[in-house]
Amino acid sequence: MSKFFSSKYRTLVPYTPGEQPRDMQYIKLNTNESPFPPSERAIEAASEAAKGLQLYSDPTLKALREAMADTLGITPDEVIMTNGSDEVLNFAFMAYCDDEHPAVFADITYGFYPVFAEINCVPTKIIPLREDFSLSVDDYIGTKGTVFIANPNAPTGLCLPTSEIERLLQSDPHRMVVIDEAYVDFGGQSCVPLTKKYNNLLVTGTFSKSRSMAGARLGFGVANAEIIQDLDTIRYSTNPYNVNSMTMAAGIGCLADDAYTKENCQKIINARAFTTKELQKLGFVTTDSRTNFVFAKHPLLDGEQFYLALKARGILVRHFSAPRIKDYNRITVGTMEQMQTFVKVTKEILEK
Amino acid sequence: MSKFFSSKYRTLVPYTPGEQPRDMQYIKLNTNESPFPPSERAIEAASEAAKGLQLYSDPTLKALREAMADTLGITPDEVIMTNGSDEVLNFAFMAYCDDEHPAVFADITYGFYPVFAEINCVPTKIIPLREDFSLSVDDYIGTKGTVFIANPNAPTGLCLPTSEIERLLQSDPHRMVVIDEAYVDFGGQSCVPLTKKYNNLLVTGTFSKSRSMAGARLGFGVANAEIIQDLDTIRYSTNPYNVNSMTMAAGIGCLADDAYTKENCQKIINARAFTTKELQKLGFVTTDSRTNFVFAKHPLLDGEQFYLALKARGILVRHFSAPRIKDYNRITVGTMEQMQTFVKVTKEILEK
Repeated sequence: MSKFFSSKYRTLVPYTPGEQPRDMQYIKLNTNESPFPPSERAIEAASEAAKGLQLYSDPTLKALREAMADTLGITPDEVIMTNGSDEVLNFAFMAYCDDEHPAVFADITYGFYPVFAEINCVPTKIIPLREDFSLSVDDYIGTKGTVFIANPNAPTGLCLPTSEIERLLQSDPHRMVVIDEAYVDFGGQSCVPLTKKYNNLLVTGTFSKSRSMAGARLGFGVANAEIIQDLDTIRYSTNPYNVNSMTMAAGIGCLADDAYTKENCQKIINARAFTTKELQKLGFVTTDSRTNFVFAKHPLLDGEQFYLALKARGILVRHFSAPRIKDYNRITVGTMEQMQTFVKVTKEILEK
Repeated sequence: MSKFFSSKYRTLVPYTPGEQPRDMQYIKLNTNESPFPPSERAIEAASEAAKGLQLYSDPTLKALREAMADTLGITPDEVIMTNGSDEVLNFAFMAYCDDEHPAVFADITYGFYPVFAEINCVPTKIIPLREDFSLSVDDYIGTKGTVFIANPNAPTGLCLPTSEIERLLQSDPHRMVVIDEAYVDFGGQSCVPLTKKYNNLLVTGTFSKSRSMAGARLGFGVANAEIIQDLDTIRYSTNPYNVNSMTMAAGIGCLADDAYTKENCQKIINARAFTTKELQKLGFVTTDSRTNFVFAKHPLLDGEQFYLALKARGILVRHFSAPRIKDYNRITVGTMEQMQTFVKVTKEILEK
């Protein structure tokens, strides 16, 4: 740290992305990427766009917003496109949190929320999940501030029905609720339709998981047009060309090939069912995941030791050291073949 | 604007990018893009990277930082790579400006500086350029706060020698100085070598102009390793995967083909000399531009009317309405053919 760094950030603890070791070729089940390549249409569109990089990308992102709106059944002025969903989440912390509006979120959820709060110097109210990691909407009703709920939640994998989110929205129409749907395509219920009915709702999503485009950095937010205007004011005040031309083209290509995305999601759901069943047979406790990962612990196996044993055998999963979840590991669901290898290696570890 | 938008941003006026009209095919001399396509190596590398988009990009950007460091004669820990240079500039406003450290910059310079100050809620001290648009370092010496100087400056095109920047750095080693070198490759002197000597200097650059990659969004900052650590703390607290895989690959490809970049810069410099000379023959007053644009006014021609007359004839240039420069237009230097057309059309307008 330099002596010039502003006092407001001197204690800032940044987000820690999942490790990307280069010492050997791992089966990578640690960052919730898709095991499937992007749509051929996305690849072709991006390659074509690369030829015209001398021109700025369209700051209005018109063509991409139109394609996204068509896919989601909304209008183009109800969606913002961003450099990953991290960007739209950060914009939401900027736009809707301040000293009078703390950021309200769970103790166990996406690890970036507390970092977004800190970088924006806004207070937080942390609400513990229940003992079984489920989220009780009643714990949020009556609190003040802007609520952030990852639904399905990470790393627990659990999903609330939209009726519960609706109950939260109705309980106080004067407060903003942000629903982070990064994992919704693997069996969750989307709140996007609720944005037509509630003007205090922002739903965020990403192309990084179900759409096999983590490396392209493309996220989005859906809300009524006034909310999108707020977020666009922030976008135009930080980085108007936030989404590059290649990613924009790839996004449009991907959306034109939605059947491929759906097919891949089904494969992940099947591989998740297989993995969960096999882990349970081996004595693991798992949550009811609606995501592309499994969250599991074993009564006889220390969480960190299991993570290290897998790593030593060429399989990367994600371990978190927070006390409530340190016995667990978050295992990204890859291809069926990868998950068969994972189960086989897990058996070997248990037998030792 | 929604009723939920935080009071801190309710009066925020976002940056206005140059217009991108779609009603006809223009000769586009309004956003300082390169008229030349990106390097073949950049195109190929980006296309190859598109095939692997299912994986996250490398958050450490190791390979790109190494290539950039080699090109600039620095070490990889002395450079940060960002989503356009707007991102590293915003990070600098975040890291080095606060209530005790106002942002200090010229009245006529890159229009994003006041927006970055406002979005980060930091005070500003605006220092007018001299009557001839030159910047006097003496006006900055003795002021408090973090200095931002675009060098060469936009939209004036004027460039300070590095000896003047060095005088500013020496005058107060306890204050940060940010030199924005977006246009340096067209005949300016770079301050990058000074980062070895002064720990209060950050130099920013971009791939958008001389490197024909505006649509890829790639910028960088060069400073001593401690400054880079500060900026990386902010990067990891907002968007650790800020640069996507395709842009990273294209950047590496571009740097491997530096001769192509240099050749294009020379073509622009030649076309700039031609354009300046022809405009002067027609009675225009021009500045001594060291950039890829010409800044010009005519004693008999209203600035805005000239802009509108060009637009009606299919040529887009950039007009600013700020009082001190409203008589001028900023004309991006395109190919020699484009500039010949521009001169021809300008003659027609003058003859009317």
